[in-house]
Amino acid sequence: MSENCALRRANVLANHILQSPPQPSNISLAREACLQYTPPEVNESYGFQVEEMRKLLDGHNLKDRDWLYGNMIRSDLFNRKERGGGKVFVSPDYNETMEQQREISMKRILHLLEKGVFKGWLTETGPEAELKKFALYEVCGMYDYSLSAKLGVHFLLWGNAIKFFGTKRHHEKWLKHTEDYLVKGCFAMTELGHGSNVKGIETVTTYDPRTEEFVINTPCESAQKYWIGEAAIHANHAIVISQLEINETNQGIHVFIAQIRDQDGNICPNIRIADCGHKIGLNGVDNGRIWFDNLRIPRENLLNSVADVSPDGEYVSAIKNPDQRFGAFLAPLTSGRVTIASCAIYSAKVGLAVAIRYSLSRRAFSAVATGPEVLLLDYPSHQRRLLPLLAKTYAMSFAANDMKMMYVKRTPETNKEIHVVSMGLKALLTWHNMRTLQECREACGGQGVKTENRVGHLKGDYDVQTTFEGDNNVLMQQVSKALFAEYVSCKKRNKPFKGLGLEHMNSPLPVLPTQLTSSTLRCSHFQKNVFCLRERDLLERYTCEVAELQERGESREFSFLLSHQLSEDLSKAFAEKAILQAVLDAEAKLPAGSIKVNKVTVSHGRFFAQPCLTSKF
Amino acid sequence: MSENCALRRANVLANHILQSPPQPSNISLAREACLQYTPPEVNESYGFQVEEMRKLLDGHNLKDRDWLYGNMIRSDLFNRKERGGGKVFVSPDYNETMEQQREISMKRILHLLEKGVFKGWLTETGPEAELKKFALYEVCGMYDYSLSAKLGVHFLLWGNAIKFFGTKRHHEKWLKHTEDYLVKGCFAMTELGHGSNVKGIETVTTYDPRTEEFVINTPCESAQKYWIGEAAIHANHAIVISQLEINETNQGIHVFIAQIRDQDGNICPNIRIADCGHKIGLNGVDNGRIWFDNLRIPRENLLNSVADVSPDGEYVSAIKNPDQRFGAFLAPLTSGRVTIASCAIYSAKVGLAVAIRYSLSRRAFSAVATGPEVLLLDYPSHQRRLLPLLAKTYAMSFAANDMKMMYVKRTPETNKEIHVVSMGLKALLTWHNMRTLQECREACGGQGVKTENRVGHLKGDYDVQTTFEGDNNVLMQQVSKALFAEYVSCKKRNKPFKGLGLEHMNSPLPVLPTQLTSSTLRCSHFQKNVFCLRERDLLERYTCEVAELQERGESREFSFLLSHQLSEDLSKAFAEKAILQAVLDAEAKLPAGSIKVNKVTVSHGRFFAQPCLTSKF
Repeated sequence: MSENCALRRANVLANHILQSPPQPSNISLAREACLQYTPPEVNESYGFQVEEMRKLLDGHNLKDRDWLYGNMIRSDLFNRKERGGGKVFVSPDYNETMEQQREISMKRILHLLEKGVFKGWLTETGPEAELKKFALYEVCGMYDYSLSAKLGVHFLLWGNAIKFFGTKRHHEKWLKHTEDYLVKGCFAMTELGHGSNVKGIETVTTYDPRTEEFVINTPCESAQKYWIGEAAIHANHAIVISQLEINETNQGIHVFIAQIRDQDGNICPNIRIADCGHKIGLNGVDNGRIWFDNLRIPRENLLNSVADVSPDGEYVSAIKNPDQRFGAFLAPLTSGRVTIASCAIYSAKVGLAVAIRYSLSRRAFSAVATGPEVLLLDYPSHQRRLLPLLAKTYAMSFAANDMKMMYVKRTPETNKEIHVVSMGLKALLTWHNMRTLQECREACGGQGVKTENRVGHLKGDYDVQTTFEGDNNVLMQQVSKALFAEYVSCKKRNKPFKGLGLEHMNSPLPVLPTQLTSSTLRCSHFQKNVFCLRERDLLERYTCEVAELQERGESREFSFLLSHQLSEDLSKAFAEKAILQAVLDAEAKLPAGSIKVNKVTVSHGRFFAQPCLTSKF
Repeated sequence: MSENCALRRANVLANHILQSPPQPSNISLAREACLQYTPPEVNESYGFQVEEMRKLLDGHNLKDRDWLYGNMIRSDLFNRKERGGGKVFVSPDYNETMEQQREISMKRILHLLEKGVFKGWLTETGPEAELKKFALYEVCGMYDYSLSAKLGVHFLLWGNAIKFFGTKRHHEKWLKHTEDYLVKGCFAMTELGHGSNVKGIETVTTYDPRTEEFVINTPCESAQKYWIGEAAIHANHAIVISQLEINETNQGIHVFIAQIRDQDGNICPNIRIADCGHKIGLNGVDNGRIWFDNLRIPRENLLNSVADVSPDGEYVSAIKNPDQRFGAFLAPLTSGRVTIASCAIYSAKVGLAVAIRYSLSRRAFSAVATGPEVLLLDYPSHQRRLLPLLAKTYAMSFAANDMKMMYVKRTPETNKEIHVVSMGLKALLTWHNMRTLQECREACGGQGVKTENRVGHLKGDYDVQTTFEGDNNVLMQQVSKALFAEYVSCKKRNKPFKGLGLEHMNSPLPVLPTQLTSSTLRCSHFQKNVFCLRERDLLERYTCEVAELQERGESREFSFLLSHQLSEDLSKAFAEKAILQAVLDAEAKLPAGSIKVNKVTVSHGRFFAQPCLTSKF
C-alpha cells in the first residue's frame, strides 16, 4: 500500500477512533493511485531456503514434477491465465456443466498421454517407477482432483487389479494397452447395497463348462454396481468384483474382466448402464451404475493369480481359507489409499498457501489510532487459526512420504503394517485436509467462496476422500481391531510385540518427569514417550472393555461396536504416533542448516507478542 | 428388505463369518425381487405426535409456510420430481451454469411475486407481518438458499435500508415499488479493501450546492464495491454506503440511493460494473463489483433519518457523536443476522433429516452371524455421530425462535440486547450448521456427495453464512467486548447488572453439589447454574487479563486482541447459555403431553445398549 494511501486511511480511521474534531480532509479527499497488490514474498523474509524446504517436503522426483507443471502451463487445454509480473496461473474453468467437465478432463488426460506422462505407469516396476508415478499423480491432483481421480480409476484400480490379480496372459494382453489408453478401464466393485462391506456384494457369477464362459448377473436392485468411476461415459472395459458360484457353491468374491462398451462407445448387449449424475465435486469423473443380465465372458477373463476355474469347471485355489483369499483381493486398494492420503496433504498445502498469502496482504481494522490497518496474520487469533494447521500439514507431509517409501519397498513381511498404517493415515490426513480447507475458506472471508480462489472449491472436490476407498470411520475401526488382534495374540502366546510399531510395549512404562518445563515439552524423547503411553493405555483399556463386554455375554462383534469410542481414540493415537515419528525421523536425518534451525511453524513471530499462541503449539 | 432377501444375504455372510463348509447355494443363487425402499416412517414408531412437534419447532405461521410449499410444489419452475407413493420432491436442477442459475432464480422470484408471496413485506408493519415474512423467507431458504439470499438483498438490505434510514419522501417513493419489484435493489456497502471494518470504507461522496447534487466517487481500487449481490445483472438501484465529505469535513459513513441501470438494464453513465464470477455456492445470486466516477445523484437521495444536508450544503444531524451515528447505520444488518441464524437451523434440519432417514434404511455388515445386516443408525458410533447434532439442532431451533420474537417485539430498550444476542447466535448457529452438514454428508457415504441428495450441496450454498453480514469471529469478539463494557461499567458505578442476561452475576456464586448423580446432571436448575458459572468465570478472567495487559503498557485494542482465546470462550459461553435458556423456557411453556414426555434426542434407544452414548449427551 502506498505511504500516502496508508496515511489517508489512518487519518480517516483516526477520526473515528479518537472522535477528534474533524480535520481538514484534503488528504482523505485526494485521489490516490490504485492499491497495488504486492505478493507477500516481496515483503516477507522467510529465514530459510525455500528450495531446500521444497526438496524436503516433496521428498522425491522434483524434476519430474516440474516437468509436468511445465507441460500443464504450456497447454491451453489447462486454461492458462496470465497475470501481472508475467506470472501464469493454470486452473480449470469452474463454470462448466458436468458434461463439459467430463469431456475436458478426458481431453487433458489424452494430452498428457501424448506428452508421455503415463509412460511405464503399469509396465515399469520397482520403487523408482512407483515413486515417479506417485509424484506425477500428486501434481495432477494439485491441478484438478477430477484429473487424478480419473487416472486413479484407470491405472490404480483397473490397471493394478489386472497387475495384482492377473497372470501372464492378462498382463500381456492388457497392461500396455491400458497404459496407452487403447482400453479405458473402470473398477466395478461398489454396489448400491454394499460399499464398505465388500464381502456382502450380491453380484453373482457362475460358470458354464459347455461354452467355457462365466455368466455374470445382477440378482437384485441392491446388487447394481454404483459410483463406478468412468462407467457412465468413458470406460469400455470393467473389472467386475463378484461372488463366484461353482457347482452351486459360493467361493466368495473373485475378480473378472468384462467389456462393457464396443470401440464406438456403444454399451454391450446384456449390460445396462445409467449415470450417477451431478456431484458436489469431481464432476470431471463420470460415475455410473451397471446392471448385468447373463453377461457371458470367456473363462480366461477370471483374474486367476489367487484362484482359477478349469475348463471343465473345477475350482482351484492355492489359498484354501476364503477370508485370506478375500484379503488378497483387497490389496490394490492399499495403493489407492496411499495416493489419497498424499494428495490430501497437497490439497491442504494449496489451501494454506492461499489463506496465508491472503492474510499477509489483506488488512482489517487499525489497532493503533494513527497506525495503518493490521494485516490479518498479525492478529493472534488469525495466527491461532492457521499456523497450527500449517504445522500439522508439515508433520503429515513427512508421514505421507514415509508411507509412500514403505509402500514402494513393500515385502510380504511388511504388507500387513503397510495395510494398517495406510488405513490410519488415509483417515487422519483426509479429515485434516477437510478441516484445514474449511478454516482456510473462512479465513479468506468472502474471497474464500470465490471459486477462482480455489480454497473453497477444493472442499467440494476433496470431500469424497473421507468416505471413498474405505469410509474413514470403518478404516479406523479396522486399525484398532488389528492392534487388538496383535495385543491378544502376543499376550496369549506370551510373546514380545513385533511390528505395527508396538515394540515400545515390550519395555516397562516410561516415567514422565513430574516437573513439566517448556524444554521438557519440546524434547522429542518426552514427546515420543507421551504418544507411546497414550497408545498403550488406550490399547489396554480397549482390549479390557471388549473382554468385559464379552464376559457379560455380548457377542464379539457387538463388543467391538459398543467400544467404538475407545476404538476411535486408539486408532487416532496409533496414527498420530506414526506422524510424530515421521517428523522426528525427518528432523534427525536433516543436516544442520537453515531449514533445520528455523521452526517454520512457530517462527512467524510478527510484531505482536503471542502469549496465547506459542503456548498452544 | 424382504424376508427372503434378508435370509439369503445372511446366508452369504454367514459363509464368511463362520468359515463354515460351503452350503448348497440355491438360496443365494435364486433371483430375488428388487430391494424395495421403504420410507423409515413406515417401520418406525415415533412415540410422539409429529404434527405437535412441528408446531413447536416452526413456532409460527405454519399455514403460511404450507401455502408457500404448495405454491412451489405446483410450479414446474421449481423443478418438480414425482416419486413412488405419489410423493413430489422439488429442488433446483444442480447441473446448471452460473448464468442459468441466476436466470431461473429471478424467474422463480417473479413467479412468487405473482402469487403474492411478498405482499406487505415492506409496507405492512408490526410483529405479525414480520413473523410472516420470516416464515416465508425460511421456506424459500429450505428450497434454495440462492432464492432467499436474492430476496434478502432486495428486501432486507435494500428495502430495510430505505425503511430505517429513509424518511416519508423515500418510503412513499420506493417501498411499494420495491415490494412489486418495479425497482430491483442492491446494497453497496462492502468494498474490496473493507468488509467487516465498515468504518474504513473509502468511497467518498461530496455535495455540490450549485446543482444540489451529491457526487459519489471511488477514489482507489480498494474502494470498489465488491460482492454486491444482484449488482452484476439484476439490480437497477443501489444503496450506496459512503463517507460523506461536507465542506472538506468527513462526517463518517452515510447512506445514499443511486440508480445504476436504466429500465432496459443498461449500466448508467459514470458507473462501471464487473462480475464477481462463479462461487462455490449461491450461484443464483449475481454478485458484482461497482466503481463510481463522479456519479451525481439528487440531494433527496440521501437517506436522511439520521442526518441531512440542506440545499445550500449545511450538514445537520440529530446525533452529534459520529460513533452513535455509525451504530444507527448498522441497524438493518440485525434483521439480516436474525434471518441467517434461523435459516442455518433449517438447513441443519434438512441435512439431519436426509442423513438420519438414510441411516434408517441403509444397512452395512452383519453383527450376528445369522442375522441381517445392521441399520446404520443401530451402530452406537453412528448414533454418536448424528444424535448429539440432532439434539443441538432442536435446542438452537428454540433459540432462533426466541430471537425472532425478541426482534419483532423490539423496543429502543431491547435494541442493544437484540444486537448482541443476534451476533452471538448468528455465529454459533451458522458454525453448527456447517459442522452438522459435514457430519451428515460423511454419514451418508457416497450418497452424500450426490448433489441430488442435497446434504452435500447445502454445504456449498450455506458456507458463506459464516463470514457474510459479519464475519463470525469478528461478531464473537463484539459479543465479548459488549459483555466486557457492561461488566466494567457496572463495577465502576457499583451498580447491579441489568440486561444481556447478566443478572445472575448479582447473586452470590451458585454452589454445585459435590455428588454429581445422573439426576443432578439432568436437573435444569443445575444445568443453568453450570452455564452461569462458566460465563461468570470467563467474563471475570477476560476483564482481568485485559486489565493486566493494559497495566503492562499494552494499548486497550492490543489487549483485546491478545486475549482472543478468553474472548472466544466467553462469547461462546454467553450464546450457549442463551440457547440452554431457550430450551428450558420452551419445555416449561409446554403442557405435559406426548412431545414433552419423549426426549426425542436420547429416546432413539434401538436394539443396542448405549453405555457410551447416553453418557455423552
